[in-house]
Amino acid sequence: MTNIVIVAGGPNPDLNQLFDLDAKENYYIGVDRGAWLLKKAGLPLDYAVGDFDSISEDELKQIRQYAKEFEQFPPEKDDTDLELALLKVLSMTEIGSVTIFGGIGNGKGRIDHLIANFYLVYQERFRNLIEKIHFLEEKTSICFYLPGDHLIDPLFQRPYVSVVGLTPLDKLTLKGVKYELDHIRTNHPCAYISNEFLVDQDFILSFEKGIVGVIQTIDK
Amino acid sequence: MTNIVIVAGGPNPDLNQLFDLDAKENYYIGVDRGAWLLKKAGLPLDYAVGDFDSISEDELKQIRQYAKEFEQFPPEKDDTDLELALLKVLSMTEIGSVTIFGGIGNGKGRIDHLIANFYLVYQERFRNLIEKIHFLEEKTSICFYLPGDHLIDPLFQRPYVSVVGLTPLDKLTLKGVKYELDHIRTNHPCAYISNEFLVDQDFILSFEKGIVGVIQTIDK
Repeated sequence: MTNIVIVAGGPNPDLNQLFDLDAKENYYIGVDRGAWLLKKAGLPLDYAVGDFDSISEDELKQIRQYAKEFEQFPPEKDDTDLELALLKVLSMTEIGSVTIFGGIGNGKGRIDHLIANFYLVYQERFRNLIEKIHFLEEKTSICFYLPGDHLIDPLFQRPYVSVVGLTPLDKLTLKGVKYELDHIRTNHPCAYISNEFLVDQDFILSFEKGIVGVIQTIDK
Repeated sequence: MTNIVIVAGGPNPDLNQLFDLDAKENYYIGVDRGAWLLKKAGLPLDYAVGDFDSISEDELKQIRQYAKEFEQFPPEKDDTDLELALLKVLSMTEIGSVTIFGGIGNGKGRIDHLIANFYLVYQERFRNLIEKIHFLEEKTSICFYLPGDHLIDPLFQRPYVSVVGLTPLDKLTLKGVKYELDHIRTNHPCAYISNEFLVDQDFILSFEKGIVGVIQTIDK
């Protein structure tokens, strides 16, 4: 199994969290300015992709030399740079996790970029990646789930957790959190925010039909 | 017609934009910490609402004295503070616009709060407010549209504009922008980001069925 690390072009991704991982076991994708950030951090760069309109000519030249594989696309293309990265992931076999830095903003960044990246999981072509994708920033993480029973681990060891139905849901049930839900049916996307993990209790999320995003955050 | 100004509890709403308006013609709602911000700014406070768990006892006391109308709810309620404010708006007649500051973050703030506020327009009870609601921050604005033909004005006099289908859409058409679309059908929420206004051309958005959000942003 290969764990994928994608560094997207969003502002100030917290790559410090990467140094805790064993770099050799990951496959590193740098998306546009993210490729430059991987190089600057001295991390591997297995694949660099994007239109590279957010970096200088000199930075681009260095990325070309540093990346094991390099692909540049014109700015006026149908896919976003991050979609191009995920298409590369789809072409690979035995994928473990897909951790994306710089994809949802880290207290900064454009809201439309955040929404577009949050919406990636609606695309049928990425369906097999939904439960593998993990947006990770300094203060926030987002994971996505398909129908079933899921144990949600507190990632930051912080109490706040929000559950977002990106679609209508059947039998949404939250157990082992401060505000429990029991077999709720929703007929449009719906956000249940500011729930809290409980000490010594497992948070079990379960639902039938649809897609759920779980957002964990440090801030109150 | 009464124009509503809502100041929500998000970080650093840019109230400077309010001083250009004629304060007497607006109805001001302060939501939780937003009520305190209106008082601090010397603006009117017609209605203060929330659980007020984000301000001090002394600030709460001052808000009580300053607000023309005051309602405090327990923290463990079904509606969010901003939903309570919109329920108040629903009870009023002859509403013009509903401009919300501090609702989507201003380069800061919690992503789950942003998503929850972005999702407000899915709620059937707020259907009549969809086209009136306008999130306004220093660098970003979001307006929402129901089916029909709409002229989109460049709000910041800046070029970047993104079109977000919050639902499946029929015949989505964008005219008078850099990347035009013609009668597109989508079967899930979809974000068309980083489009651009053109000088001396009207941006016409049209679609049948569903809800569209238009995000304008200063940042490239």
